[in-house]
Amino acid sequence: MTGFAQRHIGPSLSQQRRMLDELGLADLDQLVDLAMPADIRTDGLPELPPALDERDAGRRLRELASRNNPGRAMIGLGYHGTLTPAVIRRNILEDPAWYTAYTPYQPEISQGRLEMLINFQTMVADLTGLPIAGASLLDEATAVAEGVAMARRLSRSGEIVLVDPQLLPQSLAVLRTRMGALGIEVVIGDADLAASPDLARAFCVVVQTPGTDGRLQPTAELTALAEAAHGAGAQVVAAADLLALAAVVPPGEWGADIAVGSTQRFGVPLFYGGPHAGYIAARQGTERSLPGRLVGLSVDADGAPALRLALQTREQHIRREKATSNICTAQVLLAVMAAAYAIYHGADGLRQIAGEIHDRAARLAATLAEAGLVPEHDRFFDTLLVPCVDADDAVAAARAGGVHLRRVDAGHVGISVGEDVTDSDLATVARALGAEPPRDAEWGEWGADARTSAYLTHPVFASYHSETRMMRYLATLAGRDYALDRGMIPLGSCTMKLNAAAELEPIVLPGFADLHPFVPEADAAGFRELIGELGEWLVAISGYDRITLQPNAGSQGEFTGLMAIRGYHASRGDQDRDVCLIPSSAHGTNAASAALAGMRVVVVKASDDGSIDMDDLRAKIATHGPKVAAVMITYPSTHGVFEDTIIEACRLVHAVGGQVYVDGANMNALVGLARPGRFGADVSHLNLHKTFAVPHGGGGPGVGPVAVREHLAPFLPDHPLVDVGGDPRPGGTVAAAPFGSPGVLPISYAYIAMMGAQGLREASQVALLNANYVAHRLRDVFPVLYTGANGLVAHECILDLRPVLKRAGLSVDDVAKRLIDYGFHAPTMSFPVPGTLMVEPTESEDLDELDRFCDAMVAIRHEIDTVEAGDRWAPDDNPLVNAPHTLARVTADLWTHPYSRSEAAYPLGRQAGPVAGRGADKYWPASARVDNAQGDRHLVCTCPPIEAYEQDAEPAPVS
Amino acid sequence: MTGFAQRHIGPSLSQQRRMLDELGLADLDQLVDLAMPADIRTDGLPELPPALDERDAGRRLRELASRNNPGRAMIGLGYHGTLTPAVIRRNILEDPAWYTAYTPYQPEISQGRLEMLINFQTMVADLTGLPIAGASLLDEATAVAEGVAMARRLSRSGEIVLVDPQLLPQSLAVLRTRMGALGIEVVIGDADLAASPDLARAFCVVVQTPGTDGRLQPTAELTALAEAAHGAGAQVVAAADLLALAAVVPPGEWGADIAVGSTQRFGVPLFYGGPHAGYIAARQGTERSLPGRLVGLSVDADGAPALRLALQTREQHIRREKATSNICTAQVLLAVMAAAYAIYHGADGLRQIAGEIHDRAARLAATLAEAGLVPEHDRFFDTLLVPCVDADDAVAAARAGGVHLRRVDAGHVGISVGEDVTDSDLATVARALGAEPPRDAEWGEWGADARTSAYLTHPVFASYHSETRMMRYLATLAGRDYALDRGMIPLGSCTMKLNAAAELEPIVLPGFADLHPFVPEADAAGFRELIGELGEWLVAISGYDRITLQPNAGSQGEFTGLMAIRGYHASRGDQDRDVCLIPSSAHGTNAASAALAGMRVVVVKASDDGSIDMDDLRAKIATHGPKVAAVMITYPSTHGVFEDTIIEACRLVHAVGGQVYVDGANMNALVGLARPGRFGADVSHLNLHKTFAVPHGGGGPGVGPVAVREHLAPFLPDHPLVDVGGDPRPGGTVAAAPFGSPGVLPISYAYIAMMGAQGLREASQVALLNANYVAHRLRDVFPVLYTGANGLVAHECILDLRPVLKRAGLSVDDVAKRLIDYGFHAPTMSFPVPGTLMVEPTESEDLDELDRFCDAMVAIRHEIDTVEAGDRWAPDDNPLVNAPHTLARVTADLWTHPYSRSEAAYPLGRQAGPVAGRGADKYWPASARVDNAQGDRHLVCTCPPIEAYEQDAEPAPVS
Repeated sequence: MTGFAQRHIGPSLSQQRRMLDELGLADLDQLVDLAMPADIRTDGLPELPPALDERDAGRRLRELASRNNPGRAMIGLGYHGTLTPAVIRRNILEDPAWYTAYTPYQPEISQGRLEMLINFQTMVADLTGLPIAGASLLDEATAVAEGVAMARRLSRSGEIVLVDPQLLPQSLAVLRTRMGALGIEVVIGDADLAASPDLARAFCVVVQTPGTDGRLQPTAELTALAEAAHGAGAQVVAAADLLALAAVVPPGEWGADIAVGSTQRFGVPLFYGGPHAGYIAARQGTERSLPGRLVGLSVDADGAPALRLALQTREQHIRREKATSNICTAQVLLAVMAAAYAIYHGADGLRQIAGEIHDRAARLAATLAEAGLVPEHDRFFDTLLVPCVDADDAVAAARAGGVHLRRVDAGHVGISVGEDVTDSDLATVARALGAEPPRDAEWGEWGADARTSAYLTHPVFASYHSETRMMRYLATLAGRDYALDRGMIPLGSCTMKLNAAAELEPIVLPGFADLHPFVPEADAAGFRELIGELGEWLVAISGYDRITLQPNAGSQGEFTGLMAIRGYHASRGDQDRDVCLIPSSAHGTNAASAALAGMRVVVVKASDDGSIDMDDLRAKIATHGPKVAAVMITYPSTHGVFEDTIIEACRLVHAVGGQVYVDGANMNALVGLARPGRFGADVSHLNLHKTFAVPHGGGGPGVGPVAVREHLAPFLPDHPLVDVGGDPRPGGTVAAAPFGSPGVLPISYAYIAMMGAQGLREASQVALLNANYVAHRLRDVFPVLYTGANGLVAHECILDLRPVLKRAGLSVDDVAKRLIDYGFHAPTMSFPVPGTLMVEPTESEDLDELDRFCDAMVAIRHEIDTVEAGDRWAPDDNPLVNAPHTLARVTADLWTHPYSRSEAAYPLGRQAGPVAGRGADKYWPASARVDNAQGDRHLVCTCPPIEAYEQDAEPAPVS
Repeated sequence: MTGFAQRHIGPSLSQQRRMLDELGLADLDQLVDLAMPADIRTDGLPELPPALDERDAGRRLRELASRNNPGRAMIGLGYHGTLTPAVIRRNILEDPAWYTAYTPYQPEISQGRLEMLINFQTMVADLTGLPIAGASLLDEATAVAEGVAMARRLSRSGEIVLVDPQLLPQSLAVLRTRMGALGIEVVIGDADLAASPDLARAFCVVVQTPGTDGRLQPTAELTALAEAAHGAGAQVVAAADLLALAAVVPPGEWGADIAVGSTQRFGVPLFYGGPHAGYIAARQGTERSLPGRLVGLSVDADGAPALRLALQTREQHIRREKATSNICTAQVLLAVMAAAYAIYHGADGLRQIAGEIHDRAARLAATLAEAGLVPEHDRFFDTLLVPCVDADDAVAAARAGGVHLRRVDAGHVGISVGEDVTDSDLATVARALGAEPPRDAEWGEWGADARTSAYLTHPVFASYHSETRMMRYLATLAGRDYALDRGMIPLGSCTMKLNAAAELEPIVLPGFADLHPFVPEADAAGFRELIGELGEWLVAISGYDRITLQPNAGSQGEFTGLMAIRGYHASRGDQDRDVCLIPSSAHGTNAASAALAGMRVVVVKASDDGSIDMDDLRAKIATHGPKVAAVMITYPSTHGVFEDTIIEACRLVHAVGGQVYVDGANMNALVGLARPGRFGADVSHLNLHKTFAVPHGGGGPGVGPVAVREHLAPFLPDHPLVDVGGDPRPGGTVAAAPFGSPGVLPISYAYIAMMGAQGLREASQVALLNANYVAHRLRDVFPVLYTGANGLVAHECILDLRPVLKRAGLSVDDVAKRLIDYGFHAPTMSFPVPGTLMVEPTESEDLDELDRFCDAMVAIRHEIDTVEAGDRWAPDDNPLVNAPHTLARVTADLWTHPYSRSEAAYPLGRQAGPVAGRGADKYWPASARVDNAQGDRHLVCTCPPIEAYEQDAEPAPVS
């Protein structure tokens, strides 16, 4: 190991030697030889450039950033300049305590980001005037599609979607792709939507407000539309600019049922298109139909208020093929930033920002009108549609002055004013159009459409307006959460590896952060080169031929890959192939994505040894033969083993004309060792946020590029506004931005650039070594459920706790929560096998941390045995069922348990932290065991009043 | 309040209104009118450019940075390219938990940085081979001066300092300034130092190793020098390159008594000259003579190991005019970075880096020799002295290739190889000199001079070599400490205000961070412009005429100002003026600086009301009349009031020909309201790390620019290598780098640029308002010792706890430690009046935090009364004497106190943090009360063995 790789890979060479000795292995190569089938192995290393060190990678990325020309982006189309307060950039976007956290499935150790997410929901609910808001969607375009799908669930009649001709083009494109897969027709309405003849057969009407052309509809017009739609039995989905809603009457007040959009302009950098948090809000009573995550209030075991993800039975991992949305990853980090922006500015601040934006647009409109260029609409928020002699000339003149405008057609430009636009920019634009620089003027008054209702009235939006307080609020919330900066997060299938500082540093460079997705290609030269190179590298690593970076989550990658398969079959006249074979052990998202892609899911059983039941696969293929569109296989399997039947499975499916989708969730076991594109698969999605070092951000952003063999390349996604490379494709559009979430691509770029081919290979080898070491150390304590060849696992292992727990009357939840007391995030629980724990240590954890984890598991086994023995601890009063133990409990005046405070809090002695040290180093959960059912029964999903926390002043001692 | 100012200033306008109402004041102007003497007030605002917002300030600083040309700095002369690991940059230099901390005077809440500082000491001790190492000095040049001053204390004979002709020029210049002030002659020795005829009368010999010309002395030569010096009764001070000591025999092994130098090349950016941590190490038994701070091991009240500053009675604030060093601020943040670098690389890593540097230098030497340019010395570490036809041509040619070389003279260049130098750089240099690019070659072997002894053998240097572990170690240490990111640090006289993210962000820009201090002026154009503008702004604010930014700490500013006064008097033939009048309430550093400047300190008494006793001042002036060189007055006074006699005091001193030095420590009460340079003073130093938002960094860096009236300008510091502006001056040199610590100047630049004149004025007003509000709320609980006109204080107030504490048998220490339990850093203790607390809230704290503090003080008063009453709590067992209460105590199985765990830990209920929240938000001290005496009796000041911590596994409950 040399250079950056030796920093990324946790175990030192001497630690690796000790682990290999423990396993009786000569070296890492022997481990791979014994664990991985020979027939899938690659001969050499992927073709990648020589590894760079941190300094050279940083220089290369600064150089690429400098070749972008962000200028002042006044293009609009759903993306707007915004000023990210430095306190938010530094203390969220650049703070590992925030960005290395996992999705808050363990609420006791996630109260900080859960609080920010309920702040986000409150912000969205308040601004839209709709009381139920989710904890973020992937972007505005997919939010429109999710909103329409939700409307389908809520509506009892109608069959088509009627769409505002002013819908953002990328939203329309994504909506068409998503509805097309389900066979739902999308009809563009008339300019006067309410009068569209197709309204009668619509289950849903989508209106963009303000329109893409900038026109702000009078409230009366929107109210009339809502009434007409409701009269026709259709739901109304409003795609609304959230910042405009600080100033004008919001959707909830004019009758919309659902509001969707982007929160990008709430302090989240443009990032050349993403990642940004989409939002969705809806009427009271619709919460069970809401797509994506929803944070709700509940109570913990002490009766104290505690937040957690609510109504999870709605979600794709539970509903599988019955799911109506496949959304999994959200955009937590970006939602946290947007919420922080609203908190820092408060209602008055947002109102002022919205007002100043409108004022600048109005002054520009006035001066243009004076020059004879009267904007098409006199009611607008921030965007003007302006006639001009030659739009190309105007755009070019503005660009020469450092401003990007939108060319609408030969005779019109679009001009959008963001928070960042200065008087000097306005003057540039005016001059580019031949007008005088704007002066004060009255134009575009809102009158009755101005918002009068209050919003952001919760104290959280009024308490943190100085930087000092904001910094402390963010530090306090971060202090409640367990992230990779505290210790291991051994979540099977999630690959919680190091997110190195050198990888994260470049993302805030202005050349990357401030670039609008629709600037001319020449102004994005650096990003285009980065995207091109990264794509080539991922192709080399995965063994495919072509790749798209558009899908902005793993689930979106699955959908994209399956749609490519559908497109391929259709192109060959094979429209009827609609069966997707999915092993029973697959991620629930696989099935949900297949359903969304319009496929029928047929489940293939698992054998007793955890591998695909090949007999059942043959039987299902025999049954569905010419209908088989695809098989979706995760490799190595979600059971944590390298199945040696993978090549045979590919052969069988190909033999009947089906395509093979290998889910790249477990790619971290393969990089540099095997290439799915070369061992039989046709398509894979990769998870940059697992294998390629993009941080999980507390639950997003994710990036799910799709790599395909050449024959599927024509069916990869396209974009309505930007040439994404290659020939025009019929593959539709799957995300708002042409390249999905380019803002985080520098992370994966830096990771691969610094690791190099040899480093990546070593990382995979050490990931295997670490998992096998843990399996070896724990197999006498908790059986390893499945192993592959030679008794070895792949990069993760499933610990079977069922027999032991059953005897003691305990649950796997008890173990997961007890691990918190030991200073750990729990492994993946009950997936893919109920009652088990799936452990994936990744290559970044060193031997000391692995041993600390194994010691904890051994100690917990002793505790379980003590419960089973029954002589010391009662079944309903022992360290496991009472876990996790909060500070409030352990420091309470009264202690009534049959075990001591020390046994509760420091079960392995004071050295509870990852670093040898003192008691103060221990991580303490902010909540005791959270009651999920209570919260779902009494759903509260906006900020509770401060009084709700008062009972927390002195919680009752644990009884 | 608008723009950035409203983020920087804590209280909102409505909070200000409430506070003004409480004080019975109409507005802020009335407060100033009543509190501040009218005759010192300024008419208008200082002339500053209009305030910028965060975005524009960032753009301006990026533009300035881009106008510097760092290239590859191969100039050497004590500054070397280094690669800062990104994990260290992000998690120390960019993390407010590290940079907003105060000096670790309260050890219980500073164990994290104290651990890093003892790591630093261990690193220095190991590498130098000298067992006693301090916790950092200000730079290499002042470290040489401090080393020589220490040698003076240790030596019983001799009167001169004999100096290696190869001493770095800036070290020689600073040494001359410092010794000149004390009347000690500095003599340059012969090339063969040991044979210098002046050795016989030297108390100290200073040797640079390797020499400035790069020559690495054979160990035998150094040993002979040490023997000769010791034979003559002289101490040997080695100014040694610390990285070279990873490879060659260290000073402690060849007989040096003291080693000094810089730790810059341990991962600390060049920063155009600073801030960097200087180091000092010395023989066993010399610890009581060591200048600056020393961290040592002790035990806490539970018997657990705990670190704290050792032997503080040595320091300037205790010894005052008897001090032999005035060093106060250290370079903690930079020392932490250097220690982290050594920890991350470990012994093997440092050995490899040093080896590679030497190898590159050797390969370059070989190719140059082949081309006929034989380097002057065949023994070197990283620096070559190379003859060439035309040095100017060679330097220019290298510069054209992006490399900065040192022009030594017309026929020689100096070439220094840093960690960052690439083969391509070597090729550029070779070509610039007309040679071929280097190939592998043997040259410059060290033979017997190679180091064979082990170093960095403590486990801390072997445990954190993966980035994951390093990140967690840093997070864990940060977690132990209380900094501004957790709550208020109301330290009187220290001005712990917001250090805004937007101010800190620019310092890591490569254009600022990677610039060598001795590049041609044209290559530092951006920094020069920044320094020029900042200087003009500070002049406008302070009312003086000229300024120097060279002093790199407040204490150095004092020395510089006093030396300017001395120079001025001398220039007028007034050599005998040597009396410095200093009020009894002054900072101890004032007296120490005066002593170091060769002045006699005459103390002026304070009146009962805390102001300068004007009768005593008149008497002292009458006594010393023509001998009076200066008076040093802190204004507003350290008693926290605006004395109305300041103008009269100035007049009296001027009347006898003395100069008036106004210590700018309390400038935060004056900015925008009054200008010392206009109300009678001749010179002031400003503390950028107090008034102008440079963070305290856990105990440094500090910046102490000196502003003077025109007549003193000719006596400001000069620099031997760089034109610092203005005419050549006889003022000597006070820091190694021409502009001191330019690396942090962008912070103050951004602060002033974003606040603007009006914002700065409002900040001062709110600083006064906050202090008066606290005084008002607490005056019935603890009397405010001194007030000025109309019963108002200035920007801080002294709370007199003595009567109350005396009755209860408690100490002010008990209150300070108890405040930790309430979630606060203690105010300044027992300065300037023993037994009191001095509170300075600054303008950045809002009303909620002020009230939280006042509530805590009120509650503590009740606790004191309860102790006094004697019926509930014993004098030796109550929440005050047992404070602070650690987690280990409050969670211990046994609890025997007459108060509850809740009363111990949550005296105001669970809302203990600055943010309304839960118990888990509370800050917990890492140690119980630390025993200072025990540690001083048994001094341990390098990392204790791990076993020392084992007793910590389960501390005994508090008895």
